Amino acid sequence: MRATVIHAPFDIRVEDVPDAALRQPGDAVVRVVRACVCGSDLWAYRGEAAREPGQRIGHEFLGVVEETGSEVSGLRAGDLVVAPFMWSDGVCEYCVEGLTTSCVHGGFWGSVGSDGGQGEAVRVPFADATLVKLPADALSDDRLLSGLLALSDVMGTGHHAAVGAGVGPGTTVAVVGDGAVGLCGVLAAKRLGAERIIALGRHEARTDLARTFGATDVVAERGEAAVAAVRELTRGQGAHAVIEAVGTEQSMRTAVGITRDGGAIGYVGVPHGSGTGLDLGEMFNRNIALRGGVAPVRSYIGELLPDVLSGAIDPSPVFDLAVDLDGVPGGYKAMDQRTALKAIVRF
Amino acid sequence: MRATVIHAPFDIRVEDVPDAALRQPGDAVVRVVRACVCGSDLWAYRGEAAREPGQRIGHEFLGVVEETGSEVSGLRAGDLVVAPFMWSDGVCEYCVEGLTTSCVHGGFWGSVGSDGGQGEAVRVPFADATLVKLPADALSDDRLLSGLLALSDVMGTGHHAAVGAGVGPGTTVAVVGDGAVGLCGVLAAKRLGAERIIALGRHEARTDLARTFGATDVVAERGEAAVAAVRELTRGQGAHAVIEAVGTEQSMRTAVGITRDGGAIGYVGVPHGSGTGLDLGEMFNRNIALRGGVAPVRSYIGELLPDVLSGAIDPSPVFDLAVDLDGVPGGYKAMDQRTALKAIVRF
Repeated sequence: MRATVIHAPFDIRVEDVPDAALRQPGDAVVRVVRACVCGSDLWAYRGEAAREPGQRIGHEFLGVVEETGSEVSGLRAGDLVVAPFMWSDGVCEYCVEGLTTSCVHGGFWGSVGSDGGQGEAVRVPFADATLVKLPADALSDDRLLSGLLALSDVMGTGHHAAVGAGVGPGTTVAVVGDGAVGLCGVLAAKRLGAERIIALGRHEARTDLARTFGATDVVAERGEAAVAAVRELTRGQGAHAVIEAVGTEQSMRTAVGITRDGGAIGYVGVPHGSGTGLDLGEMFNRNIALRGGVAPVRSYIGELLPDVLSGAIDPSPVFDLAVDLDGVPGGYKAMDQRTALKAIVRF
Repeated sequence: MRATVIHAPFDIRVEDVPDAALRQPGDAVVRVVRACVCGSDLWAYRGEAAREPGQRIGHEFLGVVEETGSEVSGLRAGDLVVAPFMWSDGVCEYCVEGLTTSCVHGGFWGSVGSDGGQGEAVRVPFADATLVKLPADALSDDRLLSGLLALSDVMGTGHHAAVGAGVGPGTTVAVVGDGAVGLCGVLAAKRLGAERIIALGRHEARTDLARTFGATDVVAERGEAAVAAVRELTRGQGAHAVIEAVGTEQSMRTAVGITRDGGAIGYVGVPHGSGTGLDLGEMFNRNIALRGGVAPVRSYIGELLPDVLSGAIDPSPVFDLAVDLDGVPGGYKAMDQRTALKAIVRF
């Protein structure tokens, strides 16, 4: 089969690789229908996150079950399914509690020895626990497929940030980061009843999308000026709930600055940089909480799926570039250069 | 009147100062009956927190109202009252929400221009909102007075940490810090229904007290060895809820290491050091939350007072050294040298 492989920074290729195949009785093989490129893939692309030459890449996909192992009971060939960005066994203590990202048998697509999502097919461990079945008729609805694909990562991750930040009815929310996760954070905040949503960003196409998703205000400033602007909008106080969807020291510093006393930062941007960007003294004096991390999106699909199916939320506009498998390297390039927000791969 | 004054690091004196007096119609003057020395006072004592020469010190006290301003309606001369470690107006948005430490008119005892708690009397701004009335007959019960004095800071602060850490029925809790706040954190965790409480400490008198307060296990190791020991006690997982009551980079690092995936650190140790001690990458991967800060103890007195009065909790044993006002410098010295856990001042 053909799949995307990363050889070195900025060297992404689509190559022939061994076919995805069952290895364990709980496995399934999924023929990929839609995949996409994640902002966190760019860390690998840019060489800021280490990868072994030849490693697969891509962790967001949905597709059709092609084959199941002897112990798979809840799925069969032909089922349309979406995969969260990690697999999990569904039975360990963490999975039972919903923290599937800490599953004792969990792992990431594209890690050494596993298939990546940006390829024709994927071997899925613990298929019953990992995959979520979708209505078959979604296959004929391109827009819906895009929205469902967002459940594999960005929509659940934005939701995780919103939950971590304590978004609820009546809250004022600020979102740091205008990538797909930040935008899904806007959507999640709106869905959770936020009264006011301030999106930080200066890329007009993205801030327009933020407004479509529910942002009530946009702040184009950065750094200290952004902090001042958010405070100006909030009677000097800041936002109750801040979604941090970047992961740099600068973005974390901004997040602390714009959080209201007693508020919380929901952080889902993979931390990068040698420091934290956190002024712990300021957080202490103002009782600012920090909650979040790698999002257990598998646990959120049950809650979010009905709203995507009904159209109550539609994250599909985060995909503003469509490519085929051969176009994946171009998708990376476009996202790296910020000419595309998020590339979807149609097979 | 006479009060404690800090002139320079390690130079604490008891001196004649101007009498505490009403300045605003909402003020009260309280004649101090009990005060104490706080672990955070030691940062000033050691020169690690800046003070102006001649500044008052001490922020924990209870006493008898001596005089009230014209607008004070809920208190009168002769009332026994306890003061939280900050004053607050009781009417601003933050106070209404319970975050009295962020009161827009709030302040600390002993800040420049204000009386400190370690003196014969204190002018109390916003007396109706700041002070909490106590039963008059407590005056004749020395042990009860000690327990009530703990409501001014350490008991409420330990409770804040426990709440921030998410302590609840059935949780496993670990407590970093064997000072008065850490010990009150043990008491608070027990009160909130923790099933298992692991106290970290190597000072036997203190760990014995921790056991009296409800600790089920004691870990004497430090650093990486402490992390290993807590994990050993928790099937490799760590504690759901970690109370951080020290504030150094090392203690924060230990706190992160012993927190279970998906758990939370309730931090109330005033942050010291140039870094945070937080490994944000580890916190991210394991979804560890950080919540806490300066404790709004005023808001907790209502909840904790009945339990202190009934004897359901008794924080009084944290005071292991009693001095009179002239003995305050000796109290600092004893606490600095760790020969005393916490010094109480009897007037």
